[in-house]
Amino acid sequence: MPKTGALSQLMQALRCLPGVGPKSAQRMTFHLLQRDRRGARNLAESLLAALEKIGHCIQCRTLTEGELCRICANPGRDRTQLCVVETPAEVYAIDQATGFKGVFFVLNGRLSPLDGIGPNELRLDLLEQRLASGEVKEIILATNTTVEGEATAHYISELARQNGIRTTRIAYGVPFGGELEYVDGATLAHSFNGRKDY
Amino acid sequence: MPKTGALSQLMQALRCLPGVGPKSAQRMTFHLLQRDRRGARNLAESLLAALEKIGHCIQCRTLTEGELCRICANPGRDRTQLCVVETPAEVYAIDQATGFKGVFFVLNGRLSPLDGIGPNELRLDLLEQRLASGEVKEIILATNTTVEGEATAHYISELARQNGIRTTRIAYGVPFGGELEYVDGATLAHSFNGRKDY
Repeated sequence: MPKTGALSQLMQALRCLPGVGPKSAQRMTFHLLQRDRRGARNLAESLLAALEKIGHCIQCRTLTEGELCRICANPGRDRTQLCVVETPAEVYAIDQATGFKGVFFVLNGRLSPLDGIGPNELRLDLLEQRLASGEVKEIILATNTTVEGEATAHYISELARQNGIRTTRIAYGVPFGGELEYVDGATLAHSFNGRKDY
Repeated sequence: MPKTGALSQLMQALRCLPGVGPKSAQRMTFHLLQRDRRGARNLAESLLAALEKIGHCIQCRTLTEGELCRICANPGRDRTQLCVVETPAEVYAIDQATGFKGVFFVLNGRLSPLDGIGPNELRLDLLEQRLASGEVKEIILATNTTVEGEATAHYISELARQNGIRTTRIAYGVPFGGELEYVDGATLAHSFNGRKDY
């Protein structure tokens, strides 16, 4: 049985990856050591480089190398529109898929008092400073539709109201190309209530 | 958009893992950097340790730290029974699941002349030496049922025959607990032809 120290340690270590259970970890371990040692070394080095170099943008809190992320550092972006999201992955998704030319603020979480996550943990102080500066004209709330996501959206909309800033929320409804029959009830209700003139 | 150098490099590097496409790699990257930096560091270090320490057992060619794997180093194993498998993962699976107390030989591949994999690449010279030593009384062929696996099994059975060694092949048939209705035709044919007295 080849389950020596370094082998089983690697199998265990791979399980920190989301969606990787014991079977996948074993398969990955054997694959890397048998067929792709170069890939394994590259992965190890990329991990260490990313850990060392990547931190949070001082303005929007997304993941970035250096102090400012590419969006915040870009003078061509419209600083009057600020989109609030929960994670850096969502910045990436919105920036790729939509034509949004404004800037972002990344919460890196959502309000969840039971888990000890309050406004300080989400660095809402940074957001407040930004709203108080008067630069922002519209806040676009793109938090998720979970209970915590909704609570977070509500909290931020209150901050915006205090500063007299317009707040919008991205539309929730039937996915593009989706069939009504297979859409869950909550989505359908959102879609129905959010109907527009045609 | 947070896709800076180190980030996209890590996303790319994760794709060396089997079953990880661009979407999973992106999810893993954000997960590691946002929520599990300790796990990421541990993974990088485990990869480097495994690459440095783990090589092939000089006797059976499985993956191991040190010269001899745990099975070959164990004086309690029966050296008259030699099970030939394609990969170290199979050694692991057989050793875990069966009561087999013999030893293994790992091909780390299968004969595939079109891909330039011949007897030398599989280190069949090592296997031949071992068969010639007279220690082995039975070779158990546990290569896969692919064309190359069957060809490899045939080749090794010839080596065994030249040395007057008994050769067996593990049974292929309907999986335990499987229902006949859902079993593929080739398996069913194997199962039928390999029927035994009841």
